[in-house]
Amino acid sequence: MSQNLSQALDYARNNHQRFLEELKELIRIPSVSTDPQSAAEMEKAAAWVADQLRALGVSEVAICPTARHPVVCGEYRCGLPAAPTLLVYGHYDVQPAEPLELWQSPPFEPTVRGEYLFGRGASDMKGQLLAGLKAIEAILRNNHLRVNLRFLIEGEEEIGSPSLKQFIEEYQHRLRADVALNLDSGIVAPDLPTITVSLRGLAYFELRLYGAAGDLHSGTFGGVVHNPAQVLCELIAGMHDRQGRVTLPGFYDRVRPLSQAEREDLARIPQDEAYFLKTTAAPALFGEEGYTPAERAGARPTLEVNGLYSGYIGEGSKTVLPAYAMAKISCRLVPDQDPNEVHEQLLAYLREHAPRTVRWEVVQWAGSPPAAIDPHRPEVAALQRAMEQVWGVKPAFKREGGSIPVVAQLKEILGMPTILSGFGLPDDNLHAPNERLHLPTWKRGIETLIRFFDNLGVTVGEGAPAE
Amino acid sequence: MSQNLSQALDYARNNHQRFLEELKELIRIPSVSTDPQSAAEMEKAAAWVADQLRALGVSEVAICPTARHPVVCGEYRCGLPAAPTLLVYGHYDVQPAEPLELWQSPPFEPTVRGEYLFGRGASDMKGQLLAGLKAIEAILRNNHLRVNLRFLIEGEEEIGSPSLKQFIEEYQHRLRADVALNLDSGIVAPDLPTITVSLRGLAYFELRLYGAAGDLHSGTFGGVVHNPAQVLCELIAGMHDRQGRVTLPGFYDRVRPLSQAEREDLARIPQDEAYFLKTTAAPALFGEEGYTPAERAGARPTLEVNGLYSGYIGEGSKTVLPAYAMAKISCRLVPDQDPNEVHEQLLAYLREHAPRTVRWEVVQWAGSPPAAIDPHRPEVAALQRAMEQVWGVKPAFKREGGSIPVVAQLKEILGMPTILSGFGLPDDNLHAPNERLHLPTWKRGIETLIRFFDNLGVTVGEGAPAE
Repeated sequence: MSQNLSQALDYARNNHQRFLEELKELIRIPSVSTDPQSAAEMEKAAAWVADQLRALGVSEVAICPTARHPVVCGEYRCGLPAAPTLLVYGHYDVQPAEPLELWQSPPFEPTVRGEYLFGRGASDMKGQLLAGLKAIEAILRNNHLRVNLRFLIEGEEEIGSPSLKQFIEEYQHRLRADVALNLDSGIVAPDLPTITVSLRGLAYFELRLYGAAGDLHSGTFGGVVHNPAQVLCELIAGMHDRQGRVTLPGFYDRVRPLSQAEREDLARIPQDEAYFLKTTAAPALFGEEGYTPAERAGARPTLEVNGLYSGYIGEGSKTVLPAYAMAKISCRLVPDQDPNEVHEQLLAYLREHAPRTVRWEVVQWAGSPPAAIDPHRPEVAALQRAMEQVWGVKPAFKREGGSIPVVAQLKEILGMPTILSGFGLPDDNLHAPNERLHLPTWKRGIETLIRFFDNLGVTVGEGAPAE
Repeated sequence: MSQNLSQALDYARNNHQRFLEELKELIRIPSVSTDPQSAAEMEKAAAWVADQLRALGVSEVAICPTARHPVVCGEYRCGLPAAPTLLVYGHYDVQPAEPLELWQSPPFEPTVRGEYLFGRGASDMKGQLLAGLKAIEAILRNNHLRVNLRFLIEGEEEIGSPSLKQFIEEYQHRLRADVALNLDSGIVAPDLPTITVSLRGLAYFELRLYGAAGDLHSGTFGGVVHNPAQVLCELIAGMHDRQGRVTLPGFYDRVRPLSQAEREDLARIPQDEAYFLKTTAAPALFGEEGYTPAERAGARPTLEVNGLYSGYIGEGSKTVLPAYAMAKISCRLVPDQDPNEVHEQLLAYLREHAPRTVRWEVVQWAGSPPAAIDPHRPEVAALQRAMEQVWGVKPAFKREGGSIPVVAQLKEILGMPTILSGFGLPDDNLHAPNERLHLPTWKRGIETLIRFFDNLGVTVGEGAPAE
């Protein structure tokens, strides 16, 4: 172990209690982004983050206004000519705490009980954000960093980052970097550190079918007019084959096949059939033949019905033959699928299969491409090695089934891949009462990030700083 | 023509203007059964009908209370020992008149314009009720009737006859008859008198599917858990085959095949493909292969989706994997199908086809058997001959696709078939603004009914009255 590294690790150990107190300070600011009354608290949290950056020696710290809540930016130049640049992403906003009566201690009065710190945002993601800042502090208080850093700390993640796309476009000169580090993902188990190497994309549609000019009496017209609700069901039923595969034409053409190594990585994720059955309480699982549950949930594309509506849905009976039927249908996409191509595939399916007894239209509500990072990149290798050093096991490479807008936007606008990781646990009660942070894992997380920055400098840096 | 008959027809012709004035009187009473403020008007309309019956010489006239609006009963005994008994059914309530601004003259101020009398209830069915009462008056003022009559005039037809079943059960000793005459159906065209010889029955279900314990994130769980909305669509899609036939096991086992004569009768109904396309504005028709539209709408059973619900149906997108999906599904039944058997058939279909990835349940909301009258019965023959005498053409035998609760209830509780006819036209604007009655057809209707009673007496009566 280099002297630099051991000094930084000692510093972190010696200052752990203060780090925890600072995290409590941040949690005490109720920065609930969805609350229209929260503007002052949001400003306060942004200022707190900006002060932290300034205290680290980060330059050009700015609290940049957006249409809603400000973004905190900043920059650290290590002075090494060939040093890589890392964009540290985070968010200082939190979910609402309601229902308050279910909290064992007040959500904005952080409380340690046993190995956990309880409070809104403790895990998602004020704890993760501080883990990153404190790892940087531990290095900078003792030595130099051998990477350049840029910071993008937003205040709207919990409301879907509505201002972020425009912000990234406008501020791209202050955000460009080789890779982003986003600690807003988690760890699948306390003994299995995790790097999320891909996110699924999303293509979300509304399919609307129109039959007769108005609702009809099902007695007078049943048997003569095609029922749009029935047609909708037939079209949706045809969108999967008997093997659970999606039948939109060309849907799998651009899906990268899973390599044996990738399948082995996914097999380490402790999310088997029993896990999903227990988590969902579904009577039985379902999915594409030939793939494990973890593969189906993260590495294979899907088509889901998110909503169905037609006719009369109140209590009891109404003998209506509906004039209209609607389905919300979305696809989760994997590399290298494209939401606009999937839109075309859906239209092609409908052109082929929709009967001439109905008129139809498709609205596309949302679309984001899938995102993946090459697990052989030096930055991923640096984090992987750090995790192995701290945990003594090779980290799991996870594929996340959901989408994270900022990851897609950084890729789309700046061509920047994201290393997605973090130290939150699946049972941290995110978005729920009694959110908590597992402090031993948090401590390991800070150590991991110190080693990550150290590994990263060794891997890609070039000796001593020029300054 | 007998002297009795010609006297009655002369009387009707000479009193036509007074008949019309009396109909206007009845229309002026706004007996809107669904209006909670209408109790006094409903009483007034019931009393008006009771007074009419008493003026005819009907005995035991009673205004019988129900949970909501009263039923008017009465009885006329002709005194002939073997005379048949006819139950005259009618309703004195009407639909609401709203939207009022679309009426050219006030709905409860009956107004003659051209050949039409405009007003709420003019056609449905105050005009039809009066046609019956005035035909009886025309006979009784001049001679004897040679049939016994009983009367059942309700005030809740336009709200689904909620009190009627219990009423028929309680008052069955005052209602028993050989056959009922219900003039609440119509005539398909001014030049084609019509007898409705069958009504379809109804079996109405709600199918509920349950998957996971709660709604799930479609990113995290899509591909692993079976989506109940998708399962629902697959189950519904499987309920029809490619020929448009219903696939519930045994569904057609008790369907009486259409004879060549019945198909020829139905071919006279002016409801061809062009008619249905124009009426519904559907892009194209649909239905069971091998049957004409009129056959499919009246003489063949159907299965319809009346409502669909699952997940998120608001504006925009929500990436939910729903825990629940629901469909309202109803079957229109033809003789000799039985709603309870169809319930069993639906359960058998679901037991065979529902996957074990979901739990399901079926609620039966409504069920009424199909109703048909033997067109060779003497009472039907008497009406058929009367129509031929007045119109100069053989009447059409129509099969109505909808259900009429009272027809099913009289059949079920009293075993009584119903002769269903009337003189309302398809363009009378029933339940809509500017409801109207075609006065020349109404006049023919009164003459038809006089001849019907006359034919009926000749056919089934036995000479002169005993009194």
